[in-house]
Amino acid sequence: MEFTRPRGTRDFLFEEMRQRKQAEGTLRKVFESYGYQEIKTPLFEELSLFTTKSGEEIVDQLYNFKDKSDRELTLRPEITAPVARLYLNELEKTAVKPIKLYYYGSCFRYERPQKGRFRQFWQFGCELIGAKTPQGEAEVIALCSDAIQSLGITTADVNINHLGIIRGLFRHFDISTETQREIMVVIDKGDKDLLIESLSGDEPVIDNDELNQILLKLIDLVGDKSIISEVEELIAPYDEPKEALEELKELISLLEAFQVENYTLNLGVARGLDYYTGIVFEIYVPELGAQKQICGGGSYSLVKVFGGQEVESTGFALGFDRLMNAIEELTETEELPSHLDVYVAPISKDVRTDAFEITQTLRQNGIKTDVDLNAKKFKKLMNYANNIKVPKIIIVGAKDLEEGKVTVKDMVSGDQELVDIENIVTYLKEE
Amino acid sequence: MEFTRPRGTRDFLFEEMRQRKQAEGTLRKVFESYGYQEIKTPLFEELSLFTTKSGEEIVDQLYNFKDKSDRELTLRPEITAPVARLYLNELEKTAVKPIKLYYYGSCFRYERPQKGRFRQFWQFGCELIGAKTPQGEAEVIALCSDAIQSLGITTADVNINHLGIIRGLFRHFDISTETQREIMVVIDKGDKDLLIESLSGDEPVIDNDELNQILLKLIDLVGDKSIISEVEELIAPYDEPKEALEELKELISLLEAFQVENYTLNLGVARGLDYYTGIVFEIYVPELGAQKQICGGGSYSLVKVFGGQEVESTGFALGFDRLMNAIEELTETEELPSHLDVYVAPISKDVRTDAFEITQTLRQNGIKTDVDLNAKKFKKLMNYANNIKVPKIIIVGAKDLEEGKVTVKDMVSGDQELVDIENIVTYLKEE
Repeated sequence: MEFTRPRGTRDFLFEEMRQRKQAEGTLRKVFESYGYQEIKTPLFEELSLFTTKSGEEIVDQLYNFKDKSDRELTLRPEITAPVARLYLNELEKTAVKPIKLYYYGSCFRYERPQKGRFRQFWQFGCELIGAKTPQGEAEVIALCSDAIQSLGITTADVNINHLGIIRGLFRHFDISTETQREIMVVIDKGDKDLLIESLSGDEPVIDNDELNQILLKLIDLVGDKSIISEVEELIAPYDEPKEALEELKELISLLEAFQVENYTLNLGVARGLDYYTGIVFEIYVPELGAQKQICGGGSYSLVKVFGGQEVESTGFALGFDRLMNAIEELTETEELPSHLDVYVAPISKDVRTDAFEITQTLRQNGIKTDVDLNAKKFKKLMNYANNIKVPKIIIVGAKDLEEGKVTVKDMVSGDQELVDIENIVTYLKEE
Repeated sequence: MEFTRPRGTRDFLFEEMRQRKQAEGTLRKVFESYGYQEIKTPLFEELSLFTTKSGEEIVDQLYNFKDKSDRELTLRPEITAPVARLYLNELEKTAVKPIKLYYYGSCFRYERPQKGRFRQFWQFGCELIGAKTPQGEAEVIALCSDAIQSLGITTADVNINHLGIIRGLFRHFDISTETQREIMVVIDKGDKDLLIESLSGDEPVIDNDELNQILLKLIDLVGDKSIISEVEELIAPYDEPKEALEELKELISLLEAFQVENYTLNLGVARGLDYYTGIVFEIYVPELGAQKQICGGGSYSLVKVFGGQEVESTGFALGFDRLMNAIEELTETEELPSHLDVYVAPISKDVRTDAFEITQTLRQNGIKTDVDLNAKKFKKLMNYANNIKVPKIIIVGAKDLEEGKVTVKDMVSGDQELVDIENIVTYLKEE
């Protein structure tokens, strides 16, 4: 019988794991420099948590199942809903606001695997709960931008929108929630032709030509802060979207204070989900082609959807696997150093016990050390040490041992030195 | 609608996460000092991977489910079988042996939650594949013992057995595989009365009084290496178990070379699964009571069970949650430092932009900094800073700013100092 790993999943081996851990560590540092603290939620949740958030349709894309007591559970497809649940369960009543938390963990979706899309994938994200907008939003965008920069991804483009503008127009024209949802999903797809068809085809989703014309112009507005005047002009006849535009303007000036310089205003960013209420943003790395989106975020009222008190919340999730793709695409692959500091090679069988003892002393002093366990011939050990590119080897021989010494060989320079065993730790640490 | 987390799962909040990450980091250092490299396998696998390993009965304790294409999958209950699969898929043909790998990740079992037993739990473990025994076994036991010591758990007791002794006796007395399995499960339970009932009750599992008497004496042998002579005496009449006893003796002398001093020989350690072949060990922390076992391991032939070439393998898994319990039970709880280095407090609204700019400069220099986002009154900010025990605050005031300065206050000593903004990073890093 042959076993394979489930479709759409991956095994991570040594090199890849080290690269991923390096990236994780870099991200943790940036998130913590912003005062965020890490939390962890379970890998599965009640199914209703996600259907309440995203609608019943989402079930098609979930790994949902019944447990042995007939509970409807699902592997989590994302971590914002679990965080909102955690907030309601553990933090709403007691924690001082604003609450800043971040998470890193795997999520699951049942869909056809393809390049850059896996059934088990990782998200690195954060939520800021209870901070006033737009200063909270500016800080979150600054964090997101810094986090991506810290990985050496320099071409990332932060695309920002304020959904209050379009929602204000919907209010003015009295568009039903259902129709709003339908059109936001189309905008979110980013397919201009589909949108034109939806708005001005034979059976337009919105039966209002004035609004349709504004929408088509609005979602085309992409650029630096100079486009604000064009938005102003477009919405001039209507009062409802004006407050949102003012917030967007304030955000822009706050982004300057938070030293975010590279961003794009993009009135076509929609995020496609009901609970996004104000600022939304998506980050693209053009070099990744069809999988260019590495981040999505914004302000939301999810806690209220789950039955809690309204609280201002902003967050984002970085697609960690895509970040790794972007790092590979955009940065020099630096060769990782050997996973060992030293390899201990006994010349003959009779000195193996000494070799083990020396090895243990080094390990207990935090020096990454390996030793032959298989009684290989000395020549084979040298070949192995060369193969794994270990920087130093310790040659243990009977004659040297009599004088309490071993030979340390630098595998780069080729230099050898006789060192007292009792000084070996100091010797290696000083080098 | 109220959402709760699924039964038997946990949310980890700030403090607990930091403690867990600290322990993870300590363990990673020890494993890497032994030349082990981290890998990661998927959270779910084909169900058959675990039924092949452990028998169909295991399904009762699994989170198994069918995916949308009717594949029988399960959340992994442990990580040894996935590693054996990974070895067969990725490493068997190409990797130089011995292969040393470690893993850290969550596992799942469907059983009644109780103190110290959760439905999602974490394992930290390793596998050494292709190293000769018993030197490989000695090294693995040394690693395990060092790893536990490194966490400050000083009362852990390593209990070692060699299953070849009992299996040799089974061979001598021609006991069927089925009966062997049955009796090993009883021994593994560690319930002496149940074992006596099984061996000498009305319907004894083994219909051989000679063997039953030996078994009852054998599994009672627990102690230091002086018990070896008692084992020798017991098995003296039989040839089959002798090779195993010699291996156990060699292991004992190797443990000395690997500087493992505190261990117990315990002929009652059984591990209860067919694929354990030689040395097995379990580690107990007596202070944890009924949940005292924090580790299980040994040598196994799992790769062969999965259809690969026989290869000597030794590994163990630490129950990470129980380790955390043991740390809590046995070590002084040191108060973690504040999650922030500095808190930036603007005196009035008009200097907020400056406060944001200073904050960003500190963050970009790796200083963990937070700033008020909610335009709170200065007095409230001071209370907040006191509450979170941040070691330093930066007071941003309009008058100081005119001279390019801010006030840095040490929250422990109460000392204040005016510092040039352009020197603030150096000032804070030098402290």
